Amino acid sequence: MKKVVIMGCGRTGSWLANLLDAAGHNVTVMDVETYSFRRLSPGFKGKAIVGNGIEQEALKKAGIEEAEVFIATTQGDNRNIMAAQMAKHIFNVPRVICRIYDPLRQEIYQTLGLETISPTTIFAEMLKKWVEG
Amino acid sequence: MKKVVIMGCGRTGSWLANLLDAAGHNVTVMDVETYSFRRLSPGFKGKAIVGNGIEQEALKKAGIEEAEVFIATTQGDNRNIMAAQMAKHIFNVPRVICRIYDPLRQEIYQTLGLETISPTTIFAEMLKKWVEG
Repeated sequence: MKKVVIMGCGRTGSWLANLLDAAGHNVTVMDVETYSFRRLSPGFKGKAIVGNGIEQEALKKAGIEEAEVFIATTQGDNRNIMAAQMAKHIFNVPRVICRIYDPLRQEIYQTLGLETISPTTIFAEMLKKWVEG
Repeated sequence: MKKVVIMGCGRTGSWLANLLDAAGHNVTVMDVETYSFRRLSPGFKGKAIVGNGIEQEALKKAGIEEAEVFIATTQGDNRNIMAAQMAKHIFNVPRVICRIYDPLRQEIYQTLGLETISPTTIFAEMLKKWVEG
Protein backbone atom coordinates (compact mmCIF):
# COMPACT_ATOMS: atom_id res chain seq x y z
CA MET A 1 0.00 0.00 0.00
CA LYS A 2 1.56 3.26 -1.19
CA LYS A 3 0.63 6.84 -0.40
CA VAL A 4 0.26 8.46 -3.81
CA VAL A 5 -0.50 12.06 -4.79
CA ILE A 6 -1.69 12.61 -8.35
CA MET A 7 -1.79 16.11 -9.82
CA GLY A 8 -4.42 16.43 -12.55
CA CYS A 9 -7.72 14.58 -12.61
CA GLY A 10 -8.09 14.45 -16.39
CA ARG A 11 -8.58 11.23 -18.27
CA THR A 12 -5.20 9.72 -17.42
CA GLY A 13 -5.06 11.05 -13.86
CA SER A 14 -8.56 9.89 -12.99
CA TRP A 15 -8.09 6.50 -14.67
CA LEU A 16 -4.86 5.98 -12.72
CA ALA A 17 -6.46 7.21 -9.47
CA ASN A 18 -9.31 4.71 -9.91
CA LEU A 19 -6.89 1.86 -10.71
CA LEU A 20 -4.63 2.57 -7.73
CA ASP A 21 -7.57 3.10 -5.38
CA ALA A 22 -9.13 -0.20 -6.46
CA ALA A 23 -5.77 -1.88 -5.83
CA GLY A 24 -5.82 -0.66 -2.23
CA HIS A 25 -3.44 2.30 -2.37
CA ASN A 26 -3.92 5.53 -0.46
CA VAL A 27 -4.66 7.99 -3.27
CA THR A 28 -5.06 11.76 -3.23
CA VAL A 29 -5.87 13.41 -6.52
CA MET A 30 -5.72 17.16 -6.97
CA ASP A 31 -7.12 19.39 -9.69
CA VAL A 32 -7.90 23.07 -10.13
CA GLU A 33 -11.43 22.23 -11.31
CA THR A 34 -13.96 20.49 -9.07
CA TYR A 35 -15.75 19.32 -12.21
CA SER A 36 -12.79 17.06 -13.09
CA PHE A 37 -13.58 14.87 -10.11
CA ARG A 38 -16.70 13.58 -11.90
CA ARG A 39 -14.31 11.12 -13.56
CA LEU A 40 -13.57 9.35 -10.28
CA SER A 41 -15.46 6.09 -9.68
CA PRO A 42 -18.53 6.30 -7.46
CA GLY A 43 -16.72 3.96 -5.06
CA PHE A 44 -13.47 5.96 -5.00
CA LYS A 45 -12.14 5.87 -1.42
CA GLY A 46 -9.27 8.35 -1.84
CA LYS A 47 -9.21 12.11 -1.42
CA ALA A 48 -10.00 14.72 -4.06
CA ILE A 49 -8.44 18.10 -3.30
CA VAL A 50 -9.12 21.30 -5.23
CA GLY A 51 -5.83 23.07 -5.68
CA ASN A 52 -2.98 23.93 -7.96
CA GLY A 53 0.02 21.61 -7.76
CA ILE A 54 2.46 24.39 -8.50
CA GLU A 55 1.60 26.03 -5.16
CA GLN A 56 3.33 24.72 -2.05
CA GLU A 57 0.30 25.22 0.18
CA ALA A 58 -1.91 23.19 -2.15
CA LEU A 59 0.66 20.40 -2.28
CA LYS A 60 0.82 20.35 1.54
CA LYS A 61 -2.97 20.19 1.72
CA ALA A 62 -2.79 17.16 -0.59
CA GLY A 63 -0.39 15.48 1.84
CA ILE A 64 2.77 15.82 -0.22
CA GLU A 65 4.90 15.70 2.95
CA GLU A 66 3.91 12.10 3.64
CA ALA A 67 3.62 10.98 -0.01
CA GLU A 68 5.76 8.11 -1.27
CA VAL A 69 4.90 8.77 -4.91
CA PHE A 70 3.99 11.96 -6.76
CA ILE A 71 2.71 11.91 -10.33
CA ALA A 72 2.22 15.07 -12.39
CA THR A 73 -0.25 14.44 -15.17
CA THR A 74 -2.03 17.66 -16.07
CA GLN A 75 -2.39 18.75 -19.70
CA GLY A 76 0.42 21.28 -19.29
CA ASP A 77 4.02 20.13 -19.64
CA ASN A 78 5.38 23.20 -17.84
CA ARG A 79 3.02 22.81 -14.90
CA ASN A 80 3.96 19.15 -14.64
CA ILE A 81 7.67 19.95 -14.73
CA MET A 82 7.38 22.67 -12.09
CA ALA A 83 5.25 20.59 -9.72
CA ALA A 84 7.49 17.55 -10.15
CA GLN A 85 10.58 19.61 -9.35
CA MET A 86 8.90 20.98 -6.19
CA ALA A 87 7.84 17.49 -5.12
CA LYS A 88 11.35 16.19 -5.64
CA HIS A 89 13.57 19.01 -4.41
CA ILE A 90 11.43 20.82 -1.80
CA PHE A 91 9.34 18.00 -0.39
CA ASN A 92 11.78 15.13 -1.04
CA VAL A 93 9.11 12.73 -2.28
CA PRO A 94 10.94 9.41 -2.87
CA ARG A 95 9.48 8.77 -6.31
CA VAL A 96 8.35 11.51 -8.64
CA ILE A 97 7.18 11.04 -12.18
CA CYS A 98 6.34 13.74 -14.64
CA ARG A 99 4.36 13.44 -17.84
CA ILE A 100 5.82 15.55 -20.66
CA TYR A 101 4.04 15.43 -24.01
CA ASP A 102 6.81 17.20 -25.89
CA PRO A 103 9.51 14.60 -26.68
CA LEU A 104 12.25 17.23 -26.90
CA ARG A 105 11.55 18.76 -23.52
CA GLN A 106 11.15 15.25 -22.11
CA GLU A 107 14.68 14.40 -23.17
CA ILE A 108 16.08 17.59 -21.64
CA TYR A 109 14.40 17.14 -18.28
CA GLN A 110 15.26 13.44 -18.19
CA THR A 111 18.90 14.47 -18.62
CA LEU A 112 18.48 16.99 -15.81
CA GLY A 113 17.52 14.18 -13.44
CA LEU A 114 13.72 14.30 -13.49
CA GLU A 115 11.95 10.98 -14.01
CA THR A 116 9.82 11.71 -17.04
CA ILE A 117 7.49 9.85 -19.36
CA SER A 118 6.37 11.03 -22.76
CA PRO A 119 3.16 9.34 -23.94
CA THR A 120 3.99 10.68 -27.41
CA THR A 121 7.12 8.59 -27.91
CA ILE A 122 5.77 5.56 -26.04
CA PHE A 123 2.62 5.54 -28.14
CA ALA A 124 4.46 6.10 -31.43
CA GLU A 125 6.85 3.23 -30.64
CA MET A 126 3.86 0.99 -29.87
CA LEU A 127 2.20 1.89 -33.16
CA LYS A 128 5.43 1.28 -35.05
CA LYS A 129 5.73 -2.23 -33.59
CA TRP A 130 2.11 -2.82 -34.44
CA VAL A 131 2.63 -1.70 -38.07
CA GLU A 132 5.66 -3.94 -38.40
CA GLY A 133 4.00 -6.66 -36.32
CA MET B 1 8.22 -2.17 -46.43
CA LYS B 2 4.59 -1.14 -45.83
CA LYS B 3 2.52 1.57 -47.45
CA VAL B 4 1.17 3.55 -44.49
CA VAL B 5 -1.22 6.51 -44.38
CA ILE B 6 -1.25 8.51 -41.15
CA MET B 7 -4.02 11.01 -40.48
CA GLY B 8 -2.91 13.79 -38.15
CA CYS B 9 0.60 15.22 -38.03
CA GLY B 10 0.55 16.24 -34.37
CA ARG B 11 3.15 15.08 -31.91
CA THR B 12 2.27 11.39 -32.09
CA GLY B 13 1.51 11.32 -35.81
CA SER B 14 4.70 13.12 -36.77
CA TRP B 15 6.83 11.08 -34.38
CA LEU B 16 5.39 7.89 -35.84
CA ALA B 17 5.80 9.15 -39.42
CA ASN B 18 9.47 9.93 -38.76
CA LEU B 19 10.05 6.53 -37.13
CA LEU B 20 8.38 4.59 -39.95
CA ASP B 21 10.06 6.67 -42.65
CA ALA B 22 13.48 6.13 -41.06
CA ALA B 23 12.72 2.39 -40.97
CA GLY B 24 12.18 2.41 -44.74
CA HIS B 25 8.39 2.38 -44.98
CA ASN B 26 6.40 4.29 -47.58
CA VAL B 27 4.68 6.94 -45.44
CA THR B 28 2.04 9.51 -46.31
CA VAL B 29 0.95 11.82 -43.54
CA MET B 30 -2.08 14.06 -43.87
CA ASP B 31 -3.18 17.06 -41.83
CA VAL B 32 -5.58 19.98 -42.27
CA GLU B 33 -2.83 22.43 -41.29
CA THR B 34 0.34 22.85 -43.35
CA TYR B 35 2.04 24.19 -40.24
CA SER B 36 1.83 20.73 -38.62
CA PHE B 37 4.32 19.39 -41.12
CA ARG B 38 7.10 21.40 -39.43
CA ARG B 39 7.31 18.43 -37.05
CA LEU B 40 8.54 16.11 -39.80
CA SER B 41 12.30 15.46 -39.87
CA PRO B 42 14.30 17.48 -42.40
CA GLY B 43 15.21 14.18 -44.05
CA PHE B 44 11.61 12.86 -44.22
CA LYS B 45 11.23 11.03 -47.53
CA GLY B 46 7.47 10.39 -47.37
CA LYS B 47 4.58 12.52 -48.56
CA ALA B 48 2.80 15.28 -46.62
CA ILE B 49 -0.71 15.96 -47.90
CA VAL B 50 -2.95 18.81 -46.78
CA GLY B 51 -6.43 17.44 -46.40
CA ASN B 52 -9.12 16.24 -44.04
CA GLY B 53 -9.20 12.50 -43.46
CA ILE B 54 -12.96 12.46 -43.06
CA GLU B 55 -13.34 13.39 -46.75
CA GLN B 56 -13.10 10.62 -49.32
CA GLU B 57 -11.36 12.79 -51.90
CA ALA B 58 -8.64 13.75 -49.43
CA LEU B 59 -8.13 10.12 -48.48
CA LYS B 60 -7.81 9.15 -52.14
CA LYS B 61 -5.27 11.94 -52.67
CA ALA B 62 -3.29 10.46 -49.78
CA GLY B 63 -3.27 7.09 -51.53
CA ILE B 64 -5.73 5.28 -49.28
CA GLU B 65 -6.65 2.92 -52.12
CA GLU B 66 -3.17 1.37 -52.14
CA ALA B 67 -2.51 1.68 -48.39
CA GLU B 68 -1.78 -1.42 -46.34
CA VAL B 69 -2.11 0.40 -43.03
CA PHE B 70 -4.18 3.42 -41.99
CA ILE B 71 -3.68 5.13 -38.63
CA ALA B 72 -6.02 7.84 -37.36
CA THR B 73 -4.27 9.93 -34.77
CA THR B 74 -5.71 13.45 -34.75
CA GLN B 75 -6.68 15.15 -31.49
CA GLY B 76 -10.37 14.41 -32.12
CA ASP B 77 -11.78 11.03 -31.17
CA ASN B 78 -14.82 11.45 -33.43
CA ARG B 79 -12.74 12.42 -36.46
CA ASN B 80 -10.47 9.43 -35.84
CA ILE B 81 -13.45 7.08 -35.55
CA MET B 82 -15.09 8.38 -38.71
CA ALA B 83 -11.91 8.27 -40.80
CA ALA B 84 -11.03 4.78 -39.52
CA GLN B 85 -14.48 3.50 -40.43
CA MET B 86 -14.16 4.93 -43.93
CA ALA B 87 -10.69 3.43 -44.37
CA LYS B 88 -11.95 0.06 -43.21
CA HIS B 89 -15.39 -0.20 -44.78
CA ILE B 90 -15.20 1.98 -47.91
CA PHE B 91 -11.54 1.59 -48.91
CA ASN B 92 -10.95 -1.89 -47.43
CA VAL B 93 -7.55 -1.02 -46.00
CA PRO B 94 -6.20 -4.30 -44.55
CA ARG B 95 -5.12 -2.83 -41.20
CA VAL B 96 -6.76 0.19 -39.63
CA ILE B 97 -6.02 1.55 -36.21
CA CYS B 98 -7.82 4.35 -34.46
CA ARG B 99 -6.67 6.35 -31.48
CA ILE B 100 -9.49 7.10 -29.05
CA TYR B 101 -8.61 9.10 -25.93
CA ASP B 102 -11.92 8.42 -24.20
CA PRO B 103 -11.69 4.93 -22.61
CA LEU B 104 -15.46 4.46 -22.66
CA ARG B 105 -15.85 5.19 -26.35
CA GLN B 106 -12.76 3.11 -27.02
CA GLU B 107 -14.44 0.10 -25.44
CA ILE B 108 -17.62 0.61 -27.47
CA TYR B 109 -15.87 0.93 -30.82
CA GLN B 110 -13.56 -1.97 -30.03
CA THR B 111 -16.68 -4.07 -29.47
CA LEU B 112 -18.06 -2.82 -32.78
CA GLY B 113 -15.06 -4.27 -34.58
CA LEU B 114 -12.79 -1.26 -34.95
CA GLU B 115 -9.17 -1.79 -33.92
CA THR B 116 -8.70 0.93 -31.34
CA ILE B 117 -6.01 2.10 -28.95
CA SER B 118 -6.58 4.39 -26.00
CA PRO B 119 -3.38 6.08 -24.82
CA THR B 120 -5.28 6.98 -21.64
CA THR B 121 -5.69 3.43 -20.40
CA ILE B 122 -2.31 2.24 -21.69
CA PHE B 123 -0.53 5.09 -19.98
CA ALA B 124 -2.46 4.72 -16.71
CA GLU B 125 -1.68 0.98 -16.64
CA MET B 126 2.01 1.75 -17.21
CA LEU B 127 2.04 4.28 -14.38
CA LYS B 128 0.27 1.83 -12.07
CA LYS B 129 2.92 -0.82 -12.72
CA TRP B 130 5.59 1.78 -12.14
CA VAL B 131 4.02 2.85 -8.79
CA GLU B 132 3.81 -0.77 -7.69
CA GLY B 133 7.45 -1.21 -8.70
